[in-house]
Amino acid sequence: MHPKSVLKEIYKVNLALHTDLYQLSMAYGYWKNDEHETPAVFDLFFRKNPFKGGFAINAGLDYVIDYLNAFTFEKADLEFLGTLTGNDDKALFEPDFLEYLGEMKFSCDIDAIEEGRVVFANTPLIRVRGPIIQAQLIETALLNIVNFQTLIATKAARVCLAAGDDDVLEFGLRRAQGIDGGLSVARASYIGGVAATSNVLAGRVFGIPVKGTHAHSWVMFFGDEKKSFEAYADALPNNCVFLVDTYDTLNGVQNAVVLGSQLKERGHKLAGIRLDSGDLAYLSIEARKILDEGGFPDAKIFASNNLDEHIISSLKQQGAQIAVWGVGTKLATAYDQPALGGVYKLAASKKGGVWEDRIKISEQAFKVNTPGIHQVRRFFDGQHFSGDLIFDERNEPNHRLVDAQDSTRTKNLSKDTFEELLVPIFRDGNLEYQRPSLEQIRIRREKDLSHVHPSILRFLNSHEYPVGLDEKLDKHKRELMKQVRMKNQPMEPS
Amino acid sequence: MHPKSVLKEIYKVNLALHTDLYQLSMAYGYWKNDEHETPAVFDLFFRKNPFKGGFAINAGLDYVIDYLNAFTFEKADLEFLGTLTGNDDKALFEPDFLEYLGEMKFSCDIDAIEEGRVVFANTPLIRVRGPIIQAQLIETALLNIVNFQTLIATKAARVCLAAGDDDVLEFGLRRAQGIDGGLSVARASYIGGVAATSNVLAGRVFGIPVKGTHAHSWVMFFGDEKKSFEAYADALPNNCVFLVDTYDTLNGVQNAVVLGSQLKERGHKLAGIRLDSGDLAYLSIEARKILDEGGFPDAKIFASNNLDEHIISSLKQQGAQIAVWGVGTKLATAYDQPALGGVYKLAASKKGGVWEDRIKISEQAFKVNTPGIHQVRRFFDGQHFSGDLIFDERNEPNHRLVDAQDSTRTKNLSKDTFEELLVPIFRDGNLEYQRPSLEQIRIRREKDLSHVHPSILRFLNSHEYPVGLDEKLDKHKRELMKQVRMKNQPMEPS
Repeated sequence: MHPKSVLKEIYKVNLALHTDLYQLSMAYGYWKNDEHETPAVFDLFFRKNPFKGGFAINAGLDYVIDYLNAFTFEKADLEFLGTLTGNDDKALFEPDFLEYLGEMKFSCDIDAIEEGRVVFANTPLIRVRGPIIQAQLIETALLNIVNFQTLIATKAARVCLAAGDDDVLEFGLRRAQGIDGGLSVARASYIGGVAATSNVLAGRVFGIPVKGTHAHSWVMFFGDEKKSFEAYADALPNNCVFLVDTYDTLNGVQNAVVLGSQLKERGHKLAGIRLDSGDLAYLSIEARKILDEGGFPDAKIFASNNLDEHIISSLKQQGAQIAVWGVGTKLATAYDQPALGGVYKLAASKKGGVWEDRIKISEQAFKVNTPGIHQVRRFFDGQHFSGDLIFDERNEPNHRLVDAQDSTRTKNLSKDTFEELLVPIFRDGNLEYQRPSLEQIRIRREKDLSHVHPSILRFLNSHEYPVGLDEKLDKHKRELMKQVRMKNQPMEPS
Repeated sequence: MHPKSVLKEIYKVNLALHTDLYQLSMAYGYWKNDEHETPAVFDLFFRKNPFKGGFAINAGLDYVIDYLNAFTFEKADLEFLGTLTGNDDKALFEPDFLEYLGEMKFSCDIDAIEEGRVVFANTPLIRVRGPIIQAQLIETALLNIVNFQTLIATKAARVCLAAGDDDVLEFGLRRAQGIDGGLSVARASYIGGVAATSNVLAGRVFGIPVKGTHAHSWVMFFGDEKKSFEAYADALPNNCVFLVDTYDTLNGVQNAVVLGSQLKERGHKLAGIRLDSGDLAYLSIEARKILDEGGFPDAKIFASNNLDEHIISSLKQQGAQIAVWGVGTKLATAYDQPALGGVYKLAASKKGGVWEDRIKISEQAFKVNTPGIHQVRRFFDGQHFSGDLIFDERNEPNHRLVDAQDSTRTKNLSKDTFEELLVPIFRDGNLEYQRPSLEQIRIRREKDLSHVHPSILRFLNSHEYPVGLDEKLDKHKRELMKQVRMKNQPMEPS
């Protein structure tokens, strides 16, 4: 469906430096301490479902694969790194280290949840296992890609849930955060469920359907709405959706009906009208009447203007006669929460050939990471997903899920069927995963959403989906917390 | 300072299709109606200062120049456009039109306000004059670029105002909206005043200073904070800023002091420590004491963790001993307002060789655009900017500024000196503008901000800077509104 290595088609600049400087400083530190080849495991996850909601739609993996497939430091990258200096104005990195980077071959194992799957807070979306130098260097890019695309796919899914069977069009390019911002938005929105984008480049690069109407400037240019509609119908008789609110909305609908009749005589049809301002509930109901009475019951009413899932829900409750929703800024920037707080945490590393689990204590209990080498098991009760169990793949779990925040709360899932969510993507740096098309990802999202209980999908006070630890892992985590506190903290309360 | 045509260095894909489909539909409509070469004038402006503030920092022009310099449709673009269909499954565009696009040569005049200048709501930032087909096709890209970079430059300027003489570092890449999102953020933040970015690619592409410390994973990997600091100091003795909050913050500061002494013995210095959680006011004050008593009065305290201009102001009021502010998500996504609502409005077009002014009436008075061919004159009272006057360049204005919303409010600026803000960028499609370096843009921003009254810069209830129309233009606009209402609207209230 989409071309392979989209990132390579979009970007000319090599992306090895698409990272934070501190990743390179630490990489250098590991190298200098001869620890760079030490195996380590990192988990990428987010701690809170976005938009005060109960779920997220996983997205971004295909970009991650492109990025990792091409992960090499080129000459220009190394030359640039050679110019960086520390606080004594001497070079930050030795030439030997840069040479090492130049020859480094990506060799990590990557397991990940597939795109389009419904995911929840605290579930590892990507697990990276490999030499710590590599696992560290790729952190920023993975977060940058997955945070953004998951955020937007989730927003799009929410907007589409609000729109029900109506089509949603992604119209946000002019307010998107940058050029690739617009492209990623189009891709992730399509995964989330929108029918098409206005972004023509996204159409070309990803094969996503592109749609559009016309702008106010078209009407203003002719200075007379009816003349402007005539000119448009002459030019694009097979794409006539008239924007009717340049001067007076309902007058504009009347003009659209007049042009619709002319189109009909010429064997074409009036596809619809678009409302872009004013009271969309009232205006769409009135416009619907005018269109129906004018003989155009099939002409669709498109609406745009600061829409999001909440406004769409409200308009539908008010009986708005809108069939196609053009959603721009609020979707393209995830306006009410423009960042997903995904993090990437060291969970284990080897010492003397033996895995040692790693933990970070924090003042806030929810910020303590889970140590170990994780797999996620999703349970299914025949109708709905019943829980996601995080366990250490070295210990076959029993099926009692322990709430990560409150270990006295447990849920027995032993009667349900299950599947493992983290699937192999790279082994020893080689891509082993068969990349699905965007269409296949959309089908997966649709199927997954049909298995999520409606109480989890709702926008307000959504029910919390059960995500928790295996009993053994929970016990192990708490023991490790105690050990680390003993070792690193003064005993008296500070 | 920065390489020419940064966009070409970043992007491989041609950006002619970086637009909304409706721009191409309208382009086709103008072409089919033989109006495509008709000269038209568009203004790009925003209607409200972002972040509930009183000002913005103009940014993005350099990307716009790169985009326009390379504005041609390539074969692959045209082939893709040839595949698009209308609602009858027939081609949307005739082959002759695609051939026209392929041969089209950019020939617009572009005037724009320079990057780094302080700008305000309703001021045209870019004026495009040329064949309507071209002026229309470039709309989306101009908005996409200028909306985002102006938004971020403004946010950065606010954060830097809050930080006063302290350095601000942009740390937001992992949460930025996409790859170019991160790059544009680094660039625009640097224009806005940050001292450096963590984004290494931005360092390479734009020549922006890059800075960083280390992450929790470094400490976790060693499992023992002191050992991890030792290892870091061995590797990077000239870049030692220790992150002290992995296990217990103040204990971590003590460890940093121990390592600082070891560094000193080896002829290096402890550059500082970083706090990333907890009560930053309390912890920084206590950490300062420990550092001072330990003999490190010059070691700087870095802080990060969800910072923005409001939190920085508050921490400073509480006496926080923080010298360097690492600002991430809230800056990189402009979290509290992730989009600037910039628009692009037709202001005039030619008919029979004569300019005709264009206006769009709206239900909401503030959405009515200003017709004509505009220039912006900025007045200066010797200490502060005193007002921005929008006038029609065909009519030399008197210097009485009329409030755009309330024409009974006027301000006489005739005693002040002035300059024109819109400067020629392209003439007949040729770049005439001497592009400044990022350093020059930063100097311009600093100088401009020094001429803005502090009451306009403050974060809460900022004073409104006077932006208004020339008396003649105001009168003309109101006459045109009446004419259009007469012609297009039913007379009775609707």
